Amino acid sequence: MNKDVKELALEQVKQNGGLLSVVPKAVIEAPEDLSVVYTPGVAAVSTAIVEDKELVRELTMKKNTIAMVSDGSAVLGLGNIGPEAALPVMEGKSALFKRFGNIDTIPIVLATQDVEEIIQTVKAISPTFGAINLEDISAPRCFEIERRLNAECAIPVFHDDQHGTAIVALAATFNSLKLIGKSKEDIKVVINGGGAAGIAITRKFLAAGIQHILVVDKTGILNERESESLVSHHVEIAKVTNRQFISGTLPDALVDADIFIGVSQANVLQAEWIQQMAEKPVIFALANPIPEILPEEALAAGAYIVGTGRSDYPNQINNVLAFPGLFRGALDAQATKITEEMQIAAAVAIANLVPETELTPTNIMPKVFQQNVAEVVARAVIASV
Amino acid sequence: MNKDVKELALEQVKQNGGLLSVVPKAVIEAPEDLSVVYTPGVAAVSTAIVEDKELVRELTMKKNTIAMVSDGSAVLGLGNIGPEAALPVMEGKSALFKRFGNIDTIPIVLATQDVEEIIQTVKAISPTFGAINLEDISAPRCFEIERRLNAECAIPVFHDDQHGTAIVALAATFNSLKLIGKSKEDIKVVINGGGAAGIAITRKFLAAGIQHILVVDKTGILNERESESLVSHHVEIAKVTNRQFISGTLPDALVDADIFIGVSQANVLQAEWIQQMAEKPVIFALANPIPEILPEEALAAGAYIVGTGRSDYPNQINNVLAFPGLFRGALDAQATKITEEMQIAAAVAIANLVPETELTPTNIMPKVFQQNVAEVVARAVIASV
Repeated sequence: MNKDVKELALEQVKQNGGLLSVVPKAVIEAPEDLSVVYTPGVAAVSTAIVEDKELVRELTMKKNTIAMVSDGSAVLGLGNIGPEAALPVMEGKSALFKRFGNIDTIPIVLATQDVEEIIQTVKAISPTFGAINLEDISAPRCFEIERRLNAECAIPVFHDDQHGTAIVALAATFNSLKLIGKSKEDIKVVINGGGAAGIAITRKFLAAGIQHILVVDKTGILNERESESLVSHHVEIAKVTNRQFISGTLPDALVDADIFIGVSQANVLQAEWIQQMAEKPVIFALANPIPEILPEEALAAGAYIVGTGRSDYPNQINNVLAFPGLFRGALDAQATKITEEMQIAAAVAIANLVPETELTPTNIMPKVFQQNVAEVVARAVIASV
Repeated sequence: MNKDVKELALEQVKQNGGLLSVVPKAVIEAPEDLSVVYTPGVAAVSTAIVEDKELVRELTMKKNTIAMVSDGSAVLGLGNIGPEAALPVMEGKSALFKRFGNIDTIPIVLATQDVEEIIQTVKAISPTFGAINLEDISAPRCFEIERRLNAECAIPVFHDDQHGTAIVALAATFNSLKLIGKSKEDIKVVINGGGAAGIAITRKFLAAGIQHILVVDKTGILNERESESLVSHHVEIAKVTNRQFISGTLPDALVDADIFIGVSQANVLQAEWIQQMAEKPVIFALANPIPEILPEEALAAGAYIVGTGRSDYPNQINNVLAFPGLFRGALDAQATKITEEMQIAAAVAIANLVPETELTPTNIMPKVFQQNVAEVVARAVIASV
């Protein structure tokens, strides 16, 4: 199947010259139309904004347009492929922003991977846009870029690879807790993968009130008492997780754990480790396209709920459930930041899109093509601003 | 009429939230579509570009997308109004690029007016685009920005305020020469206004073989022997014009001149000066919206041909005749520069769009809405690459 999909993808972009088109919303068929769309009519719009700069958010594309900025340093499963090769991925995701959130999204791939140059470039182009989505920028550079830009720009700057994934993982966790009858304060969560997504999930889960988290990276369980062997962003995570200072590797972490969240790589979760987990273990194996364990194997080993990033298994945990509604809400609220509160509100809204009467171990997430997902999420986000 | 046009313009952008929309070219209605538009299908496109970077010009938006970059420092008649207030003007012109050249054009207004920062920003964002149109950037900054970016970017960088205006003025001149029976080598041209457009017209006319040019600015006729009183970009122009070292003001320059080209301001050309010009004087009064002299006054004073930037008089000299076809040609040829040859070819093509049988003193330019203007210009541009 994948081969066909890839051939179709290549044919489509070859035929169309990429995926995106920029079209006027106005009819231009006569000289009078030119006078409205361009000079002299346009001068009235500019003059209105000269008099009240905030009107740029009402009278221009800034109202509904975001930039999707990438340096091509950490693209999907492809790694550091540079800006040109990253562009198709940005176009594809821009198409999803439009389809699901009705947001006009402009890919901007950068000829630099220097943190300071990326920050300066995004700041320079920011007046055009209502928000910035950072995309496929490698850790730990992505952390500083996002933090600095949020501090220095008047519009929200959001790294979806981190937070979008965290929001849908949180939504999946909320609904799993309803099914397994445990409370967020008591559960023990193991996050495998200390990259951008793993760190964002950790911080979002802590912000949402989940207290017992172990993060496992290639070096083993992140442990504050072993800080000298950790990179600085792992030291920070070690300080807010693993308060029992547990050492060891993934199987050690999983003993008595309630939820496993993998944002790591194919096949790293062994079935027998699931048997060491607490009652009704929950497995979110989000590596793409091959998860940390195949759902059938996890279920055979005793998993009660299994979710993946894939559409061909139940419980697809896909950040397309989050980012269109989240940005829709941020734009409509004219927000200057996308706060943790807004993101957690989005997670709650996504979880609640599955009615309790329909909630089962194979139906914990709304469907991507379900009507109104983005609208419902946007409303929750706006209410939390 | 202008008041209505302005009200219409404001209503339209208020209702629509600006003028532009970014839409996918692909249908996204089912999970299979997601697999083609985004992951895993999109990985095939990225992988193809990893293997051959030049494929970015075939398989992505770069094939048909340009950025329109402005710092808002010299916007239409409005001056230095900054990026936010400049945005509506950029959106309007982007709409024209699409309507007439089928080019996807993305306005990028900048939070900086620093030359070096503008250059670095445009270089950084250039991988997304097939070309860059610089727009409404004040002189003399625009000269260095364009020159540096053309030297340092792999795609064409073109300042339409300069060259687009020069191309249509050249086309108007070519057709006027046919009517007045003079040759380009012999005519004396007076260009009033030493800003970006005036300087570009001068250089383009010289490149096209027009040898006798006087440029007049507020300081008078630019004269190499009075260099000490001139700014540096005027010294450069003085060195390649006015080889008789004529001093004086606009009326002095106009004595025995064949063509007047105004890119200056309203009402600066007095009717009696036209009477001092050579036989069958040609007046292109391009200041907008109020020309250097009204056509009826120029004709009453003896002008043989009068052109303006306005659509409500004959002979509209409008750069929308040039930029859509010029960029269309540059993109289709995958050009890395827009050379003088390509620009002069565009001017010849625009002139030749008026058949000689239809050429009259009140019909020297093709109409903006005439079919195929951009296609014809694009073909000429491609042939000249």
